[in-house]
Amino acid sequence: MKYNYFIPTRIIFGENCIKENSNYMTIGHKALIVTGKSSRNNGSLDDVISALESHGIKYEIFDRVRSNPDLENVSEGADVARRADVDFVIGIGGGSPLDASKAIAVLAANPMMDAEELFSNAFKNKPLPIIAVPTTAGTGSEVTPYSILTYDRIGSKKNFVSPYIFPQVAYLDARYTINLPYSVTVDTMLDALSHLIEGYLSVKYSDFYFWMVEKGLKGLSKNYKSVMDGQLDLKTREVLLNSSLLGGMLIAHTGTSIVHAMGYSLTYYKDIPHGRANGMLLADYLKFNCETDGDKVEHILSLLNIGDIEELRSIVSGLLQRVDKRPDISESEMAHYASIAIQAPNIANNKKVVTQEDLFKIYKSSLMWI
Amino acid sequence: MKYNYFIPTRIIFGENCIKENSNYMTIGHKALIVTGKSSRNNGSLDDVISALESHGIKYEIFDRVRSNPDLENVSEGADVARRADVDFVIGIGGGSPLDASKAIAVLAANPMMDAEELFSNAFKNKPLPIIAVPTTAGTGSEVTPYSILTYDRIGSKKNFVSPYIFPQVAYLDARYTINLPYSVTVDTMLDALSHLIEGYLSVKYSDFYFWMVEKGLKGLSKNYKSVMDGQLDLKTREVLLNSSLLGGMLIAHTGTSIVHAMGYSLTYYKDIPHGRANGMLLADYLKFNCETDGDKVEHILSLLNIGDIEELRSIVSGLLQRVDKRPDISESEMAHYASIAIQAPNIANNKKVVTQEDLFKIYKSSLMWI
Repeated sequence: MKYNYFIPTRIIFGENCIKENSNYMTIGHKALIVTGKSSRNNGSLDDVISALESHGIKYEIFDRVRSNPDLENVSEGADVARRADVDFVIGIGGGSPLDASKAIAVLAANPMMDAEELFSNAFKNKPLPIIAVPTTAGTGSEVTPYSILTYDRIGSKKNFVSPYIFPQVAYLDARYTINLPYSVTVDTMLDALSHLIEGYLSVKYSDFYFWMVEKGLKGLSKNYKSVMDGQLDLKTREVLLNSSLLGGMLIAHTGTSIVHAMGYSLTYYKDIPHGRANGMLLADYLKFNCETDGDKVEHILSLLNIGDIEELRSIVSGLLQRVDKRPDISESEMAHYASIAIQAPNIANNKKVVTQEDLFKIYKSSLMWI
Repeated sequence: MKYNYFIPTRIIFGENCIKENSNYMTIGHKALIVTGKSSRNNGSLDDVISALESHGIKYEIFDRVRSNPDLENVSEGADVARRADVDFVIGIGGGSPLDASKAIAVLAANPMMDAEELFSNAFKNKPLPIIAVPTTAGTGSEVTPYSILTYDRIGSKKNFVSPYIFPQVAYLDARYTINLPYSVTVDTMLDALSHLIEGYLSVKYSDFYFWMVEKGLKGLSKNYKSVMDGQLDLKTREVLLNSSLLGGMLIAHTGTSIVHAMGYSLTYYKDIPHGRANGMLLADYLKFNCETDGDKVEHILSLLNIGDIEELRSIVSGLLQRVDKRPDISESEMAHYASIAIQAPNIANNKKVVTQEDLFKIYKSSLMWI
């Protein structure tokens, strides 16, 4: 038996968790709140501000995080952080604001650093401490040491990794997700699903993490029909948020794998939302891994209460039917994406050795069927 | 759904884990190794010293931790730490050295502090960072914010609590437990069992922690017969160590309860080892809680693959047969212990309200049968 386990984040889950646990926000004198335009209207920003004010903590708001933030976007946030002389960062939102808050926390503490150097995973000064408030149920970024940024130079997204960017505190209140539109709910749910599946099949997986896989997948399985029907009460939203958290805790240890590496190009070139891109690739990814990891693939399907991979494909298609037209992607584009994805470091997390040709085939069969 | 989760310790489990992960030991320039006389001979001290030397880190050894260390003992260690000018602490051993290392880490960083002030749970300076290397499978102290010390003023043991005394790194290598004598194996296993049961029944329990209870109890259930037979290979030892870790992770969130509160007097006045004292009380503690927590009690028995509480009692008796004579404790002594235990803060973790008379009855029926 061999494993490592490390989640230093204090996780606080439940209705009104910020209000009832605002003492954990007293980790500095002035905060930069990092968020996007759409993350403000779910009550999270108000709760954070009330909590800060109740403790006399000052704050500045940077709400210009774009979807899939790039280096320029996070540099802009770091400038605001430095000018406002903040000593901690609070990310509020989906994956984009949370990952941006991590990059900003590093850059703000390292004024001489060019944003591109983030990808070296090394920095002189400790990042500012981070608090994370997810407002979607998918990213899991509130409990990971990763920040994924758009990187134009490679025509994809790329992550940087550091134990120092684990958020110090994560507040998970499903009320903030209650009014998410159908498309965001589905896309982010597919992201969580992808984390749980890729994590379980990663070469870095250890049985010590099995509870995350089990609880996470069962939570999604029991609730995807409610998502389809649009019947999402707070209890259902909480289960989705919990599965998302578990997916984050899992990939914090295992990393992601082929699906994420391939999905990035679909987002970068075709603007397909991150989770949706992953979801489209899942079935053929599982097929690809049947040979080497058949038992685990069976186990995933059984935890999802699904008969076979084709049933998974049809459920994902069903979920996406209302939001997605079949993306228009040529074979030469797929070949190009495969040439990018094969260079992603997380490809190495797949047990079965993967070639560029394999990736092309997975793109082709995935995009034909969805 | 409401829960908090916080285990900031980096957990590294497996054979040769210190050697293979010695980089995580580079958290300071000079270490105080805190251990007891009997914890040295299992290879752990050598591994720690080799790892430190490979990184050019200096160290001093304080190996005078006694069983159930008191305030004087940890003050002595803190004096050594200050004189040697160390900047981190490495605890090696069972619960006594690990808990002592936490107290020493606080006192060394707070030179003006009297050891008795530890129980206020407040200190001016952050404790020195702590690395924990358990060499028994029971305490779980490597992943808790607790340190339990003998406190003569109250004639019992008492803990202090602080998020700052969570070890920064815990190395768990079951090789260090391989030659433990039968009595220590059984006593510490009963401590882990008690953590898992008391944690599950604590009012602070949340379902998010269920995996710890499940995996922990099943691990003990599957292996207690090997313990009885003395057939303890490395694999079995690893399962026991893993269950102990899970018990620690659980009580880090839930605290302990009646059993620990009551057990402390048996250790203080009758020198009964900590885990053994807990084990003796478990059956009647479960009986006491049947009324309010019947379903959970049933669940515990089913996870342990045991028919009823009397079977648990007879298993514990069987395990203790080789090590324990029936302790000679009068009824007036039991009444005295009950009057001490009722004042312990962890009594409040029990769902069913407990009176001093209840505790007396649990002592009486437990000690009559064992």
